[in-house]
Amino acid sequence: MNDLFLLIIEIVGTVAFAISGIRLAAAKSFDWFGAYMVGLATAIGGGTVRDLLLGATPFWMLNGWYLGVTGLSLLTVILLKRYLVKLDQTMFIFDTVGLALFVVIGIQKSLIYGFPMWVAIFMGTTTGALGGVLRDIFINEEPLIFRKDIYGTACIAGGLVYWGISLASDSVILEQSACGITVIALRILAVKYNWSIPILHNYYSPENDNKQP
Amino acid sequence: MNDLFLLIIEIVGTVAFAISGIRLAAAKSFDWFGAYMVGLATAIGGGTVRDLLLGATPFWMLNGWYLGVTGLSLLTVILLKRYLVKLDQTMFIFDTVGLALFVVIGIQKSLIYGFPMWVAIFMGTTTGALGGVLRDIFINEEPLIFRKDIYGTACIAGGLVYWGISLASDSVILEQSACGITVIALRILAVKYNWSIPILHNYYSPENDNKQP
Amino acid sequence: MNDLFLLIIEIVGTVAFAISGIRLAAAKSFDWFGAYMVGLATAIGGGTVRDLLLGATPFWMLNGWYLGVTGLSLLTVILLKRYLVKLDQTMFIFDTVGLALFVVIGIQKSLIYGFPMWVAIFMGTTTGALGGVLRDIFINEEPLIFRKDIYGTACIAGGLVYWGISLASDSVILEQSACGITVIALRILAVKYNWSIPILHNYYSPENDNKQP
Repeated sequence: MNDLFLLIIEIVGTVAFAISGIRLAAAKSFDWFGAYMVGLATAIGGGTVRDLLLGATPFWMLNGWYLGVTGLSLLTVILLKRYLVKLDQTMFIFDTVGLALFVVIGIQKSLIYGFPMWVAIFMGTTTGALGGVLRDIFINEEPLIFRKDIYGTACIAGGLVYWGISLASDSVILEQSACGITVIALRILAVKYNWSIPILHNYYSPENDNKQP
Repeated sequence: MNDLFLLIIEIVGTVAFAISGIRLAAAKSFDWFGAYMVGLATAIGGGTVRDLLLGATPFWMLNGWYLGVTGLSLLTVILLKRYLVKLDQTMFIFDTVGLALFVVIGIQKSLIYGFPMWVAIFMGTTTGALGGVLRDIFINEEPLIFRKDIYGTACIAGGLVYWGISLASDSVILEQSACGITVIALRILAVKYNWSIPILHNYYSPENDNKQP
Repeated sequence: MNDLFLLIIEIVGTVAFAISGIRLAAAKSFDWFGAYMVGLATAIGGGTVRDLLLGATPFWMLNGWYLGVTGLSLLTVILLKRYLVKLDQTMFIFDTVGLALFVVIGIQKSLIYGFPMWVAIFMGTTTGALGGVLRDIFINEEPLIFRKDIYGTACIAGGLVYWGISLASDSVILEQSACGITVIALRILAVKYNWSIPILHNYYSPENDNKQP
C-alpha cells in the first residue's frame, strides 16, 4: 500500500462519515451551519478525542483538508440529495472502508506515542466509533451504535487481531491489513446476516432509583 | 481600546452567556447546582474546548472571576427573575457584544499559539458558539444554533473579515475591531430582518438506514 | 489508611459507578457494547475530564484495571441482574464511599499539579460528579444530578471542608478524612431526610426567546 492509496481511503472515509452526520442533521431540519458541524463531529470527532487523550495536537488542525472535505460533503448533500439516497450501498462501503482505516490509524498513533497495546485498541475503537456517538449527541438521539448493529465491536475485534498478529509477526503491514480486513469483514457479515450484540434487557425501574445518581 | 474596557466587555459577555444557560436550566426545573453548571458550561465551555484543542491550560483555571461571576449570575436570576424577563433586549445586546469579543479572543489566542488563520477562525467560532451547544446538550435539547438564527455563521463571518483585513493591513486593532463589528452587525441585522441560514430539508427516512451508524 | 485500603475503595467505587451506568443503559435496552461504554463513561469520565483540564495523561491509560473492572461490572450485571436489584442499599453505600474517595483524589491531584485550592475543589467535584452527567448525556436524559438529590453539592461541601481544615492544620490525612466523611455524611443524610437543593422555577417561556441562543 502506498501513501496515495491510503490518502484516498482516508478522504473517502471522511466524506462517508461527514455525509452520515449531515444526512441525520437534515432529518432533524438543522440549517447548513448545524449540518456542517454535525458532519464535522462525525468525521473528525473520534480522532480529536483520541488526540486529546494521547496529548497530541488534533490531527485536523495540522492539515486543512478535513474541514474542506466536510464542506464539500455538505455541498454534495445540498446539491445531490435525491440522488444520494440511491447510493446507500456505496456509502455503506465507503463508511466501512473508512472505519477500518480509522481504527488502524488510531492503533498506530497510540503505539507511536508509547502506549501499550490495550490502550491502542481502545484508541482505535475511539477513532472509529466515537464520531458517530458525538453525532448522535449533537442531534439529541440515543447513540445508534450503542443500540444496534455491530460497529464498535468490529473495531475492538480488529484491534484484537492487530494484537494477535503482532505477537507472532514483526510485519506492520500484515498487522494493519489483518486488522482492517477484520473490521470490514465483520461489518459486512453483520449487515448481511443481521448479526447484533445481545441487548441488556431492562430489569429494574429507574423511577425507583433516586439513590443512584 | 484599553484593557479595562475589554475586561468589562468580557465580564458582561460572561454574565450574558451564563444567564442564558441558567434561564434555560430554570425552564427545565433544574436545581441551583444544575443551573450553575449549565450556566458555567454556556459561559466558559467554548473557550475551554478551544484551550484543550490548542494545548493551553483552560483560561478560567488561571483566574477565579469566571466561576465567581457565574455564581453572581445565578444569584441574580434567583433574586430578580421576574424583572429579568423585561431585560430581554438588554441581555441580547450583552450576549452579542460578548460573542464578538469571544470570537476575537479565540482568533487572537490561536494565532499566538502559532496556528494558521483557518484554525484561528475555527477557534474563534468555537469560543463564541460552542458554549451554547454544550448548554443545549446539558439540558437535553437539539442545539438551538444548529436550527435557527444566525449565530455560528456570524462568528465565521467575523473571522473571515479578520483574515481579509490582515491581508491588507498590519493593524491588529483594525483587524479585531472589524471582526467584532461584523459579528455584532450580522447578529443585529439577522434578528431585525429575521435572516436565517437555509434549512437542510429531510430527504430520506433514517428508519431505513440501519447500515449507516 | 494504607494504600491497599484506598485501592479497595477505589475499585469498589469504580464498580458502583460502572454498574450505575450499565443499569441505566439496560433501562434503555442498549446492547452489551453500549452498556460497557456507558458504564465506562460513568466510572472514568469525571477523572478523564479532570486530567484533560489539568494537562495530565488520563489516569486509566496508565493502569489497565479500570477498563477491566468495568468489564467485570458488565459481566456481573448480565449474570446477576435479578439479584442486583436487592442490593440497592449496598450499591448506594459503595457509590457514596467511592464518590468521597474520587473527590479527595481530584483535589489532591490538582494541588500536586500546582493549582490553587478553588481549582482543586472544582476538580474534586468534576472527578466525583461529571461521570454521572456524561452517563446521562450518553443515554439521552437530562442529567439526574442537575435535577434532584444532593450529589455535586456534597462534593463541593467536601472540598470546602478540605480547604477549611487546610487553613488550620498541616495534616493531609486530616484534610482528606474530613473531606471524605463530609461527602459521605451529606449524601446519607440527604437521602435519609430527603434533602434537596432548591429548584430554579421556570419564569419565562423559552419559545419566545429566539434572540438568546
